[in-house]
Amino acid sequence: MAKITVIGIGPGSLEDMTPRARKAIDSAVVIAGYNTYVNLIRDIIEDKEVIGTGMMQEVDRCHMAVESARAGKDTVVISSGDSGIYGMAGLVLEMLLKIEKDNRPDFEVIAGLSAINAAAAILGAPLMHDFAVISLSNLLTPWDTIKKRVEMAAEGDFVTALYNPKSKKRIKNIEEVREIMLKYRSPDTPVGIVSNASREKEQKVISTLNDFTKEEINMFSLVIIGNSHTYVNDGYMITPRGYDI
Amino acid sequence: MAKITVIGIGPGSLEDMTPRARKAIDSAVVIAGYNTYVNLIRDIIEDKEVIGTGMMQEVDRCHMAVESARAGKDTVVISSGDSGIYGMAGLVLEMLLKIEKDNRPDFEVIAGLSAINAAAAILGAPLMHDFAVISLSNLLTPWDTIKKRVEMAAEGDFVTALYNPKSKKRIKNIEEVREIMLKYRSPDTPVGIVSNASREKEQKVISTLNDFTKEEINMFSLVIIGNSHTYVNDGYMITPRGYDI
Repeated sequence: MAKITVIGIGPGSLEDMTPRARKAIDSAVVIAGYNTYVNLIRDIIEDKEVIGTGMMQEVDRCHMAVESARAGKDTVVISSGDSGIYGMAGLVLEMLLKIEKDNRPDFEVIAGLSAINAAAAILGAPLMHDFAVISLSNLLTPWDTIKKRVEMAAEGDFVTALYNPKSKKRIKNIEEVREIMLKYRSPDTPVGIVSNASREKEQKVISTLNDFTKEEINMFSLVIIGNSHTYVNDGYMITPRGYDI
Repeated sequence: MAKITVIGIGPGSLEDMTPRARKAIDSAVVIAGYNTYVNLIRDIIEDKEVIGTGMMQEVDRCHMAVESARAGKDTVVISSGDSGIYGMAGLVLEMLLKIEKDNRPDFEVIAGLSAINAAAAILGAPLMHDFAVISLSNLLTPWDTIKKRVEMAAEGDFVTALYNPKSKKRIKNIEEVREIMLKYRSPDTPVGIVSNASREKEQKVISTLNDFTKEEINMFSLVIIGNSHTYVNDGYMITPRGYDI
């Protein structure tokens, strides 16, 4: 039986992809992924078969990848970042589990650096303490559920990372997040925005809870809102663990 | 000026360390880290100078690493997992910022796979939805603060990952977490426990919120408590994103 492997290619550069992920790509016959991400690894996939479609077609793409593995071809499904964090691992696994076990391709998830790992390194040390990770995309999740989570993250004084913070069509969610957070945290709370981490045009901005929504934020940005102890010094964002140094 | 680089070596195997981290080790003169983690990369540090001390001596070790860089030696400080998630990035950065800028070594953080990335891949797809990350170590954080965060994570229906869930001396915290979670979630909620991810003796257990504290949990374990939609099928733990497949 062929194998389907769902891998995280990391934030962008091949320098940030693990050897385990690299080997899975090298030994695969078919690569499936959103075109933008396939292009990030174009140099290493040579003449492999590619199942690449545009954004919003994840379900069809994963079905094709599963069929490819069932047809006997070792297939890799790629996510940018970590396939296990808001990535393709779940979708592929749910599809596989509908196939009776005797006919099911082998399955493996290979982790990668997610946007939060990459952005934290670029900002300094914002994640030395407890944190919450929330996607602001309300395509598959009711906005009220997301807002409730923002409220709980704010009240719990979690450092709060926002995935999919803003798109061309979805511009108000981030403003509502700001308003909820301001009920619990100082307007001076540091907020870091990292866009295109580990890719060309990587950008880092450190702002405040009061002002951060005035900055450029898009689908390639990760936003990290500090907790009540987070501070900025010389361009670094730091949430102290509490060591006495 | 020499450079101090804080890197995450990933969960254990060299297969999970990024090329960027590997290159930093290769080009360093001095390696600083907890002995257990230095041993994980023993094969690639050859005859480099090592600043290695036992657990609980992080502050002294980082001071020595900073002094090593000030003395002109390129120095790498290693954390297991991701140096930017409960790792050494913050401690080193705080020390550096006390040095006047002209005499300060260059500084870089290089991200690695944290326990949560590694454990999620091993369990299946538990992190397809919003999640909270909480350390149960109350050495530097008041227990009431941690409990409040557990309560907020529970009420917000976050998938909840627990770092440092239990040690030989600290065995009651995890029981209190279970009790708080049970106020909000079904006793049948899936709980995944991954110990020694990507190392020898890697172990994976999937239990329930009602029963998970009966399982072996130690300082090398990561615990992931599902949200209200998480389910288990054929040994995989899955939190569905909500796609219609």
